[in-house]
Amino acid sequence: MNAPAHIKKSDKKPSPAERLMVMADTDMQAVNAIIKERMQSPVGMIPDLAEHLVEAGGKRLRPLLTIACGHLCGGVTGSHHKLSAAVEFIHSATLLHDDVIDESDLRRGKKVANRIWGNSASILVGDFLFARAFNLMVETGSLEALDILSTASSIIAEGEVHQLAALRDIHVTEQTYLEIVGAKTAALFAAACEVAPVISERSVADRQALKAYGQNLGLAFQLVDDALDYGGLEAALGKSVGDDFREGKMTLPVIRALEKADKDERAFWHRVIVEHTQNDTDLEQAVSRLRKSGALQATLDMARIYADKAVSALDRFEDSEWKSTLEDLSDFVVSRVS
Amino acid sequence: MNAPAHIKKSDKKPSPAERLMVMADTDMQAVNAIIKERMQSPVGMIPDLAEHLVEAGGKRLRPLLTIACGHLCGGVTGSHHKLSAAVEFIHSATLLHDDVIDESDLRRGKKVANRIWGNSASILVGDFLFARAFNLMVETGSLEALDILSTASSIIAEGEVHQLAALRDIHVTEQTYLEIVGAKTAALFAAACEVAPVISERSVADRQALKAYGQNLGLAFQLVDDALDYGGLEAALGKSVGDDFREGKMTLPVIRALEKADKDERAFWHRVIVEHTQNDTDLEQAVSRLRKSGALQATLDMARIYADKAVSALDRFEDSEWKSTLEDLSDFVVSRVS
Repeated sequence: MNAPAHIKKSDKKPSPAERLMVMADTDMQAVNAIIKERMQSPVGMIPDLAEHLVEAGGKRLRPLLTIACGHLCGGVTGSHHKLSAAVEFIHSATLLHDDVIDESDLRRGKKVANRIWGNSASILVGDFLFARAFNLMVETGSLEALDILSTASSIIAEGEVHQLAALRDIHVTEQTYLEIVGAKTAALFAAACEVAPVISERSVADRQALKAYGQNLGLAFQLVDDALDYGGLEAALGKSVGDDFREGKMTLPVIRALEKADKDERAFWHRVIVEHTQNDTDLEQAVSRLRKSGALQATLDMARIYADKAVSALDRFEDSEWKSTLEDLSDFVVSRVS
Repeated sequence: MNAPAHIKKSDKKPSPAERLMVMADTDMQAVNAIIKERMQSPVGMIPDLAEHLVEAGGKRLRPLLTIACGHLCGGVTGSHHKLSAAVEFIHSATLLHDDVIDESDLRRGKKVANRIWGNSASILVGDFLFARAFNLMVETGSLEALDILSTASSIIAEGEVHQLAALRDIHVTEQTYLEIVGAKTAALFAAACEVAPVISERSVADRQALKAYGQNLGLAFQLVDDALDYGGLEAALGKSVGDDFREGKMTLPVIRALEKADKDERAFWHRVIVEHTQNDTDLEQAVSRLRKSGALQATLDMARIYADKAVSALDRFEDSEWKSTLEDLSDFVVSRVS
């Protein structure tokens, strides 16, 4: 398979995500055209800011899922393209609001929008993209797709508030953590997958299977992300490491480390998370503790379980290149780190 | 007509807004029950914050419009109630985000939510209420209502960004100002009215008439609000006066004053708006200038024109108590100040 010229070539074997991008290239061009068209506004600040974020690219993983699941269900229509764009708009709106909340500096390697245009513009352009997402859904005429994506949107916001309320709370349990990531991350993965069989008028069982694929893939994705925030198992500490630590977020690596912590270990985490007193060497020490205790490995083991569940959810579909690439994608989400 | 016990009694003749509240009391109880139910969440911070804002009340003017227009169109159903609640959720979401943006301290006489729960919570709970609004719309099964309210939502956000971009810009024209208030305020009034005939399956002409009623009422409402921000024609300067001035917002009173400004007048507005250098006596001086130059009167005259247009839009409907109260409401929106 040859990648189109605008997709980066490399000597390495393409990852499943890259393979999906190539397979879905014609569709994604249509999706990108919708995205570009619908972020326009006579108010110039809107396309300026939206382009900064949306055109910066990212992997477009969520809209790709809608397209791939559409093909898995027999083919992709204009409504799949619109819902795929709507999914990206919801994701972009969430990112804009997240960046204001997290006080981050960088996103996808670029300065975050709110550092250029201000928090107010990021909040309002997020609202704009969110509303435009619903415009696109309405155009598909599918009340079921609208139901799925509006419910996912309220669950995402719920998960984000839950995460906010759990900040610096050392008593957060694994179950609470899974509720939070299930809502803030996995719900949109699940909805991005589920809307495709709805538009393709497939059975409820197919819908549930693809929803389960997305939900489990999203959980695996977030667990890996949370392990990577501490540098994963081996990687050197890069600049994108330590955001969760600095914010005092209770992610699974920390929860796992606390489960078998001695007094010294517990005192360390209490100081950096609850008291939120951190010095220059603390992140390095945190990483070292999480690696030694096996907490990072345990997090990745759990991600692997969810990735396997995602693959199993596809069992009911006939073999095809789309199916095998979606299976490989789930594996890749975990194997990219371990 | 006797007001139910939970509606405040006073010796004064009830205003048209109060009359509407009494006439729509049974419906508004149903709407309030929906609002209360749908702001619930296992994440406790959400109902806490939402109740603080939504239960503080306010006039519920926008959801009242949906109910009143429903009665004008022959009767109110459960779908009208749901859309009425959805309109209030969209409005509440906008208020939560506005309060973060404007850095206000008070809303409806209470401390703003972001001063209690923080900006992050206000942003996210706004997102939650916005998503829940779309859930409610989906339940009505009306794609047309979804279209109207999602389009209105993107126009509102557009208007808010436009207002942000126009901050401290002394060259803002009357036309730009009308575009901004038409979007940020009047679009939701218009949508709140227009969805009622849609649910009642009335003609396109009825839809357009009620949309025009809402749009013009919204414009009149915002123009009066902008005059009141400078104390109106006579009122003493209360604590809710001067927000626009302090933010450097170019509202119609200032635009009117600048139209016939001499050098001294222009220098004053340039200093306080563009350079944004304001001292303790500047607000008082601004009010005095706006009164003397007739700029506040000119703003209210324009509000009167829109209020009259709103009344005319109702011509095609048969006479009824609902029609006359909606007519009186339009008059009241302007007469409450002059």
